[in-house]
Amino acid sequence: MADEWPLEGAADRTPDGSGASALGEGGGRRPGRRGSRRTTNRDRAGSGAGGAIEQPPVRGHRRWFEPTRAVSDDRLEAIHLASLGVLRDTGIDVLNGTARRLLAGQGAAVDGDRVRFDPEMVVELVGSAPSVFTLHARNPDHTVTIGDDHVVFGAVASPPNVSDLVGGRRSGNRADFQDLVRLTQQLNAIQIHGGFPVEPADLHPSVRHLHATHDLLTLSDKAVNAYSLGAVRNRDCLEMTRIARRIEESVLEREPSITTVINTSSPLRLDDPMAQGIIEYAGRNQVCIITPFTLAGAMAPVTIAGAVTQQNAEALAGITLSQVVRRGAPVMYGGFTSNVDMRSGSPAFGTPEFVQSAMLGGQLARRYGLPYRSSNVNAANAVDAQAGYESVFSLWGAIMGGANLVFHGAGWLEGGLRASFEKMVLDADLLAMVAAFLQPLIVDDASLAVDAIAEVGPGGHFFGVQHTQDRYRNAFFAPMISDWRNFESWLEAGSPTAEQRAAEVCRQLLADFTPPPMDDQTRAELDDFVARRVAAGGVATDY
Amino acid sequence: MADEWPLEGAADRTPDGSGASALGEGGGRRPGRRGSRRTTNRDRAGSGAGGAIEQPPVRGHRRWFEPTRAVSDDRLEAIHLASLGVLRDTGIDVLNGTARRLLAGQGAAVDGDRVRFDPEMVVELVGSAPSVFTLHARNPDHTVTIGDDHVVFGAVASPPNVSDLVGGRRSGNRADFQDLVRLTQQLNAIQIHGGFPVEPADLHPSVRHLHATHDLLTLSDKAVNAYSLGAVRNRDCLEMTRIARRIEESVLEREPSITTVINTSSPLRLDDPMAQGIIEYAGRNQVCIITPFTLAGAMAPVTIAGAVTQQNAEALAGITLSQVVRRGAPVMYGGFTSNVDMRSGSPAFGTPEFVQSAMLGGQLARRYGLPYRSSNVNAANAVDAQAGYESVFSLWGAIMGGANLVFHGAGWLEGGLRASFEKMVLDADLLAMVAAFLQPLIVDDASLAVDAIAEVGPGGHFFGVQHTQDRYRNAFFAPMISDWRNFESWLEAGSPTAEQRAAEVCRQLLADFTPPPMDDQTRAELDDFVARRVAAGGVATDY
Repeated sequence: MADEWPLEGAADRTPDGSGASALGEGGGRRPGRRGSRRTTNRDRAGSGAGGAIEQPPVRGHRRWFEPTRAVSDDRLEAIHLASLGVLRDTGIDVLNGTARRLLAGQGAAVDGDRVRFDPEMVVELVGSAPSVFTLHARNPDHTVTIGDDHVVFGAVASPPNVSDLVGGRRSGNRADFQDLVRLTQQLNAIQIHGGFPVEPADLHPSVRHLHATHDLLTLSDKAVNAYSLGAVRNRDCLEMTRIARRIEESVLEREPSITTVINTSSPLRLDDPMAQGIIEYAGRNQVCIITPFTLAGAMAPVTIAGAVTQQNAEALAGITLSQVVRRGAPVMYGGFTSNVDMRSGSPAFGTPEFVQSAMLGGQLARRYGLPYRSSNVNAANAVDAQAGYESVFSLWGAIMGGANLVFHGAGWLEGGLRASFEKMVLDADLLAMVAAFLQPLIVDDASLAVDAIAEVGPGGHFFGVQHTQDRYRNAFFAPMISDWRNFESWLEAGSPTAEQRAAEVCRQLLADFTPPPMDDQTRAELDDFVARRVAAGGVATDY
Repeated sequence: MADEWPLEGAADRTPDGSGASALGEGGGRRPGRRGSRRTTNRDRAGSGAGGAIEQPPVRGHRRWFEPTRAVSDDRLEAIHLASLGVLRDTGIDVLNGTARRLLAGQGAAVDGDRVRFDPEMVVELVGSAPSVFTLHARNPDHTVTIGDDHVVFGAVASPPNVSDLVGGRRSGNRADFQDLVRLTQQLNAIQIHGGFPVEPADLHPSVRHLHATHDLLTLSDKAVNAYSLGAVRNRDCLEMTRIARRIEESVLEREPSITTVINTSSPLRLDDPMAQGIIEYAGRNQVCIITPFTLAGAMAPVTIAGAVTQQNAEALAGITLSQVVRRGAPVMYGGFTSNVDMRSGSPAFGTPEFVQSAMLGGQLARRYGLPYRSSNVNAANAVDAQAGYESVFSLWGAIMGGANLVFHGAGWLEGGLRASFEKMVLDADLLAMVAAFLQPLIVDDASLAVDAIAEVGPGGHFFGVQHTQDRYRNAFFAPMISDWRNFESWLEAGSPTAEQRAAEVCRQLLADFTPPPMDDQTRAELDDFVARRVAAGGVATDY
């Protein structure tokens, strides 16, 4: 059989080894002979990838299973009602006068900064938000559907620090920012940008959004995000997105083309720039992702039910405001409840509490018919086993919880304080694994393979049969990072860890990078916009 | 707030960092101050653990959610019917005359070694197996319930090689075997033994089962497993288990006290020792775990539906035999379908295909009302990110697929060719995380915390409120391995990876080990049994 197939000896192995024990010696068991990994495979190369690294193609994903219900319906209703009670009795501080006036106009009770919400008003307005919408990228191949059973993966956003295996850890800067944007563009598994994959802190805040968004729109053609740091920045980024998409304002207003994350300042406060972000983007039919950061035991109650009750109250408040601004504006329910380590006070991610909260958040979002955002997070200080297991636990909660958008999908390390080049590549593989899992199982006469089973019969093997030959090339997920060589081959290759293999893939992807096409006129218009706004001082700051 | 609580600054952080960007510099964001990890906490120390390492207590776990349905009911039925067709038309080679005669007596068609099964006979006999049973350990605290919504975790079984961080990789031997048994005993998350955690290859096969089972029963008081390598070995191990439990044979026959894994020799063959194992243990009301090793693309069809169809046929054949031997004997449906890497022929684990197959296997087991066994597996060559992520993907498939027993739960590396001390400790933490996830979310007036939310109000924090103070000590899962210190503290501590931290926990657990109590008479009886059987030559081999 070795003549016709590279597999040898696998059939001798049993999962529990009991067969091999009869041979007397552990060495009697023969591992499958594993050849060296090939990094090229033209059959599978994705459209957005460099030619040398094999990736699954750019594609959308849909969930085929019912999300896990974290609690019974009556308990879900108890959380819903408790949240409405919080909004009615305690209320939220909204640090923006326009937002308060808009809410008051719909019947909210305003007292200073404090806004108390009528439950019926909240339910009615939240009900006007769409359950699904399209987010347009300047390359239509990267336009994504958000909501219902669709699943979309975004890149890491906003760490202040960055690292790679060779250069170590350093403060965020534009050169690394650009490389992470290039990497995001190259990795097919990452469908949209999450924001700035690292803070380009060497760009002055007055003009940072202009230069960084210019980089995002020229080094990549995937959909972008803007930070809500004041209305002018929101408007600048939206206009640049319009230019890059080469569309009229009227089209932009029909086609959501940019996202912004609205983090409430937990507990129970909506800051001024965040309120401005909702007003600007909901008003222009762009995407607001309302995401309370409710760390149980710190900014939220120490119980998961309590932390999610608070999360729900804050999310509903932001979503309500978005619908007051413009009924039907695309908005997402974001869940980010995790817990602190009660020994040290450190935030923890990918914990059992995170998994449960992610599932509960999804169940609430579905109750309201809203698209749901969760995250791929961890608190590891290195791209080690902890980074791997905390990330997959996060994905477990997000995916089984019914997330429509997995934010920070690739590159997040150290509780969000660091973007890692290697982690971004490794996470892209994890996302691709999840995407493969999201492909429905095919069950039909051909896949049931009853004839092939009969043809092979007891004691045979499936290597050479036509059923296998017809399918083996694309039968299974082929990873970029996972190393399935046998121990001896792996040792000979220098015992590379997953992090080291990711560094090599990263190097190659960056070497292979070419910017996506942009016509000269669009480029000139974009350059000119940035030049004019920079010349005008960008957004004035007092530092 | 720093005066009354170790947490500082966490409230300044937002998950998407957009708030911090306004500060201008990445460094403006303050991470939570993370203290050094404490490794002692008497409040939480588990009963079976050494005093110095904090672990969750020994306890049982039950699933609170509906397992994920991998396919629709009609497709599940198609797989069921296809499997019955395979058993009827192609059949299975059963390399044991007694088994063939027993099956023929129930209406199976026997032709040489080949046995073809009447579908109605299969359905009727499989239906006589219990959906839940108790597996008794010599320490009743470690007796577990298997089936229904119960979830049990077992240790790794049968690798020929072993490694630790200091000593490197080596062939299995009794000293390492004993240390892994000690570690299994110490780790509360591991509830039962899976077999031999590594092959003690320096013990001659004629007497290996005697010495090794003696070690298992004296260094540990958790339930044990015997390999089905001939009826005499099965009987020896069962008798030793009876002695260790200090019970009569009649009680042993009422109380399942030992497991054996029956790996079919895929495709479609039941070897002689495996058939003997079923006859011996089902006949004595002990636990047979019928587990085909159906690697898609090698010993099974290249399609998941086809591989699982074959898995199902083989599993049903073994389960049918167990019920012919003794109706009502405890038996498990084992699923181990994974895929090979079609580039190298290597077996792969923790893949998207593994996750789907694990869920599909669970759905089939539930269709038959049988307890379901899955596994925690990976193909990594090091305790790196790959080992972490492949393991959690495996657990994802097993747990969401409704596994009642997760075999190889802790310690498996390198596709089962190596047991790793560090991986065992790290996996115990993963299992403890899963166990924490399996604790149902509490939703009641106290946990909804509406009063605490009102008390704290907008812009406050929850550190000092009574609701937090009453609960914080045991509010959240506390890991052994995950390192949540901030980067600077972690760097000062020498940048330990998860593997290095696991090595330290392992060292301490082994140093703290004391054997569980066994009365002198039982010990003498056990010693005497082994001495007599060894003197008699054990089980004769021709090598």
